[in-house]
Amino acid sequence: MLRVQKYGGTSVGSLDRIENVANRVAKAREEGHDLVIVVSAMSGETNKLIEYANHFSANPAKKEMDMLLSSGERITAALLAIALQSKGFDAVAMTGRQAGIVTDDTHTYARIESIDPTAMQNAISEGKIIIVAGFQGVNKAGSVTTLGRGGSDLSAVALAGALKAEQCEIYSDVDGIYTTDPRIEPHAKKLDTISYDEMLELSSLGAKVLQNRSVELAKKLKVKLYAKSSFSDNKGTLITEESKNMEEVLVSGVVLDKNQARVTLRGVVDRPGIAAEIFTKLANNNINVDMIIQNVGTDGLTNLGFTVPQSELDNAKRVVESFGAEIGGIDFDEHVCKVSVVGVGMKSHSGVASTAFTVLAENNINIQMISTSEIKVSMIIDEKYGELAVRTLHEAYGLDK
Amino acid sequence: MLRVQKYGGTSVGSLDRIENVANRVAKAREEGHDLVIVVSAMSGETNKLIEYANHFSANPAKKEMDMLLSSGERITAALLAIALQSKGFDAVAMTGRQAGIVTDDTHTYARIESIDPTAMQNAISEGKIIIVAGFQGVNKAGSVTTLGRGGSDLSAVALAGALKAEQCEIYSDVDGIYTTDPRIEPHAKKLDTISYDEMLELSSLGAKVLQNRSVELAKKLKVKLYAKSSFSDNKGTLITEESKNMEEVLVSGVVLDKNQARVTLRGVVDRPGIAAEIFTKLANNNINVDMIIQNVGTDGLTNLGFTVPQSELDNAKRVVESFGAEIGGIDFDEHVCKVSVVGVGMKSHSGVASTAFTVLAENNINIQMISTSEIKVSMIIDEKYGELAVRTLHEAYGLDK
Repeated sequence: MLRVQKYGGTSVGSLDRIENVANRVAKAREEGHDLVIVVSAMSGETNKLIEYANHFSANPAKKEMDMLLSSGERITAALLAIALQSKGFDAVAMTGRQAGIVTDDTHTYARIESIDPTAMQNAISEGKIIIVAGFQGVNKAGSVTTLGRGGSDLSAVALAGALKAEQCEIYSDVDGIYTTDPRIEPHAKKLDTISYDEMLELSSLGAKVLQNRSVELAKKLKVKLYAKSSFSDNKGTLITEESKNMEEVLVSGVVLDKNQARVTLRGVVDRPGIAAEIFTKLANNNINVDMIIQNVGTDGLTNLGFTVPQSELDNAKRVVESFGAEIGGIDFDEHVCKVSVVGVGMKSHSGVASTAFTVLAENNINIQMISTSEIKVSMIIDEKYGELAVRTLHEAYGLDK
Repeated sequence: MLRVQKYGGTSVGSLDRIENVANRVAKAREEGHDLVIVVSAMSGETNKLIEYANHFSANPAKKEMDMLLSSGERITAALLAIALQSKGFDAVAMTGRQAGIVTDDTHTYARIESIDPTAMQNAISEGKIIIVAGFQGVNKAGSVTTLGRGGSDLSAVALAGALKAEQCEIYSDVDGIYTTDPRIEPHAKKLDTISYDEMLELSSLGAKVLQNRSVELAKKLKVKLYAKSSFSDNKGTLITEESKNMEEVLVSGVVLDKNQARVTLRGVVDRPGIAAEIFTKLANNNINVDMIIQNVGTDGLTNLGFTVPQSELDNAKRVVESFGAEIGGIDFDEHVCKVSVVGVGMKSHSGVASTAFTVLAENNINIQMISTSEIKVSMIIDEKYGELAVRTLHEAYGLDK
């Protein structure tokens, strides 16, 4: 059966680590698997090239950036192929183009449009281990494109989909997805399995492991993803389709986002379209609004609350103040954080949210805003209670068991 | 008019030097030229990548080496394009493939088979400065190939030919071709002009500037080559077709090759084919024979002399000794050197060789072997007289004037 493995920058960060990856690949080969290996640039390499470019321009042309940045992955791919060949394995290195990855024209953040797997299939049927330079493809005009941060994960998932691989293993220096951040709650447990949707909602727990674009693509292509460490033989976490089994678990994880600032607009004139105007203007100013709460208004006035990343608060202030008299008053608070509880079990079980509200209240933690989705409850609270809230919720849902 | 400029590894060896090259290109642009710029990898980069590969294998697969090594030039090309863009110039970076360079399948030492200049011509007609990653092309199967040491010069000459450029300027840290090595003869003069054939015969004088393959290709494609320094505004040396004017100069340069060892075979059985057998066997053992001298034999025996690089002398010994009784005796001397006098003027002027023999005799320098071509006289002498012979000949032909 064919496996796609992807090794991130830290896993290939030195010649010794590339050697280590070669040994892991060799072992998987000896277990009888067909293998397509996707590699990132050696850690630090991409940042070095970005620094080089920024020496000349704060805003270098994206087409040239793609030619520049794509070279890091090519170097790793060639080196890993050479390392495997020196161990007697028949390995071949391929660029994104050679692997058949065609993208749109959005340089530095291209989307994969199609994959022609013929060259890879031929190489596999010749018994070769394929090493693909991640993070890159080629547009229809033949220019190299890159897929943005985390792009090598995307390459791996897309190739796994195109090749109908049994599974796609994403290797990093983290051995899986945890019920919460172990730096906050030492009793955090590694999850054996998690659904795509839970993973998307818990993205900040897996940010170092998997980016949302890759999880979304894996979900779409039904690719079984494993998040594993290249530095251990731990089993890792399987990210896959939701199953009945998963619904028995109420909550999979608790996640804290400290990069939140709250904006509350009081006494907003309650005419149709006012909210649309405010949020369109915020979007046009590249402000990423996260949670939005609107209460039903009284006396033709309504209250509107939302959160933005802390670094965007000043810009957000300017935008909302520009609405002048249409808004009665504006409150800002950058000392807030968001605690979220995620689990597919919420769909079939009631009471998950009320448990959260109850245990926070028992700890005298005031909830300023609440937002819920099918599988998530998010709460905005005072920043200083963030870690306490995580530990409290983690224990309340029995995640430490 | 279109100019092709090529900047070598030392010329683009740091970000500041790439900035310097950008300024030079900008200046040429402001003078009104269309420009195709070919760049090497930053100096040291290619050797670093070779070291990386050798960490895994003493003899890495050539296909993977090409993917590895071609990345250095891509980095420089992207950076130079970014540097020019930041100065307000419309520049575009191209890989060898994008520039339309198609080679044969000989990885790490590919030959250019064809160039499709369409993409470059389109970019030029849009007013763009083209920056091409040198040293590389792509074979018909779509794999990256590299052209061997000095390959960026070859890229530049080939592109100049395909685009019918007015001239091709090869920039390095040396400002042209000298009448002899200035470290041996401080009065060495930079040549304004030299013919392709003289340049080929003087290759060791230009070894740091231009490799023979590039000069041969320039001759074939009738590309006017300039050897210039990227660190000065000196005029450089024009390498071009022979002209009447050049023939007025008897001698263009004097060159010393210290890496020579002499082998003399005495009393060789003078049967047809014996020389062919000896030199075929030497060639099959990868021994590069340089000069060959055979004297007419007497008594059915002949004397045969040749030179080889000093490092290949031991191998050469083994080969000739394997002929056993067919060879009467064998002399070796690794303390010899070759002094050559080169000039197209020799074709139309007699006495050039005898001047050399005379002035060496006046200095008590014994000539062990002589070999002449239409435009060159080469002499094997005792190694210790090499520098003296160069200075003597340089003065005798008035090259210091």
